[in-house]
Amino acid sequence: MTREKQKKSKPVSARSRVRLRPDRGSYDIEIAKKIIDEALVCHVAVNLDFGPAIIPTSIMRAGDDIVLHGSIHNRVIRTLLTGQETCICVTLLDSVVAGRSGFGCSMDYRCVVLYGMATEVTDRDEKERLVYALVDTIIPGHNVRAPKENELSETIFLKVPLKEFSVKIRDVGVLDVEEDYAGDMWAGRIPLSLSAGPVEDCPRLKPEISTPDYAKTYNRTQNKA
Amino acid sequence: MTREKQKKSKPVSARSRVRLRPDRGSYDIEIAKKIIDEALVCHVAVNLDFGPAIIPTSIMRAGDDIVLHGSIHNRVIRTLLTGQETCICVTLLDSVVAGRSGFGCSMDYRCVVLYGMATEVTDRDEKERLVYALVDTIIPGHNVRAPKENELSETIFLKVPLKEFSVKIRDVGVLDVEEDYAGDMWAGRIPLSLSAGPVEDCPRLKPEISTPDYAKTYNRTQNKA
Repeated sequence: MTREKQKKSKPVSARSRVRLRPDRGSYDIEIAKKIIDEALVCHVAVNLDFGPAIIPTSIMRAGDDIVLHGSIHNRVIRTLLTGQETCICVTLLDSVVAGRSGFGCSMDYRCVVLYGMATEVTDRDEKERLVYALVDTIIPGHNVRAPKENELSETIFLKVPLKEFSVKIRDVGVLDVEEDYAGDMWAGRIPLSLSAGPVEDCPRLKPEISTPDYAKTYNRTQNKA
Repeated sequence: MTREKQKKSKPVSARSRVRLRPDRGSYDIEIAKKIIDEALVCHVAVNLDFGPAIIPTSIMRAGDDIVLHGSIHNRVIRTLLTGQETCICVTLLDSVVAGRSGFGCSMDYRCVVLYGMATEVTDRDEKERLVYALVDTIIPGHNVRAPKENELSETIFLKVPLKEFSVKIRDVGVLDVEEDYAGDMWAGRIPLSLSAGPVEDCPRLKPEISTPDYAKTYNRTQNKA
């Protein structure tokens, strides 16, 4: 991350300040949005009576809000409805780093950690719009039938403002202890990306329907910074 | 998941029971191990004074234990040292599912959710062995110099028993509402995998050292079930 980007931003709260390697931290909302828009899933934590619980779930963004959704029966989603604090983490893995020491082995990544409280989206029409926006987030270009009333009523949509967050990015590749560079072992970076394989049509697809281009050319990293 | 795998296993506690879509749940440790062995990162949650906090971190397995490591300055790692409850989630994303409705759009995934408490690994030699095991987990075949005493002393290694866990797997692809199959929209599954790009040698690599095969053929899904 450039020093310029760093300077432009400050944490909005003590808990969202990057403590370890603050040089890798940022509080720039545009950087956070790019990471979120590339991600498909996030991890959401709440504190239940027995301690912390995490669920992996799909993520989307609507303006300056993160939007989560889930069944009315989901324990974590229901807990969020009660106004409890949550922590949401979005992580993109960019490479495996092979250093010359064990502690020089690492990974390049981009992540956003967001703290806050969720607010339920109760307006039926807004929920319907969010369904379409979610489809467009996960599979841009894909068309679906209109949601049914029971589907809307059995699903909770929640917004968490993208406000109290930190971004942390490691993008430096190999960073060995100075004297290790003289070592005789190989060191380098192996880039990783989430890539799409050959599309599998639904086995019950009508024979006259062909695989669309948006599926054949699916590429999650198109929004990559 | 086959019905047979299902029958073989039961949750060891109430909190680790899969509540939603229990037909997708399993408590089979061999299935959990395969998922963990394919993963590079996990998300770890603890409850801090302000509420839940998550960190993404690298994961490895040593027998029937999950091993985490981190700096002695890491807030979440330090909290785990105090014997607090934690939740650790490992998620592998296998596909994006394009259904014929918004709620028919989904993802295939494999995940492990583990609850428990961490125990510190304090023995110096065991810590050293874990450093090598970690390198071999992240980059199989890679050689590194021996860890230095300050590196070992400044890093905390923690074990969490792989005991109170659940596995949840969605692998069914398109699962639409029955009447939707007659619809005229495309539906299908787009497989996703974490794939390695061309290796980048460390810019300061000694010129006589060539890129090893284990880097050129890096493949995270080799352990795929």
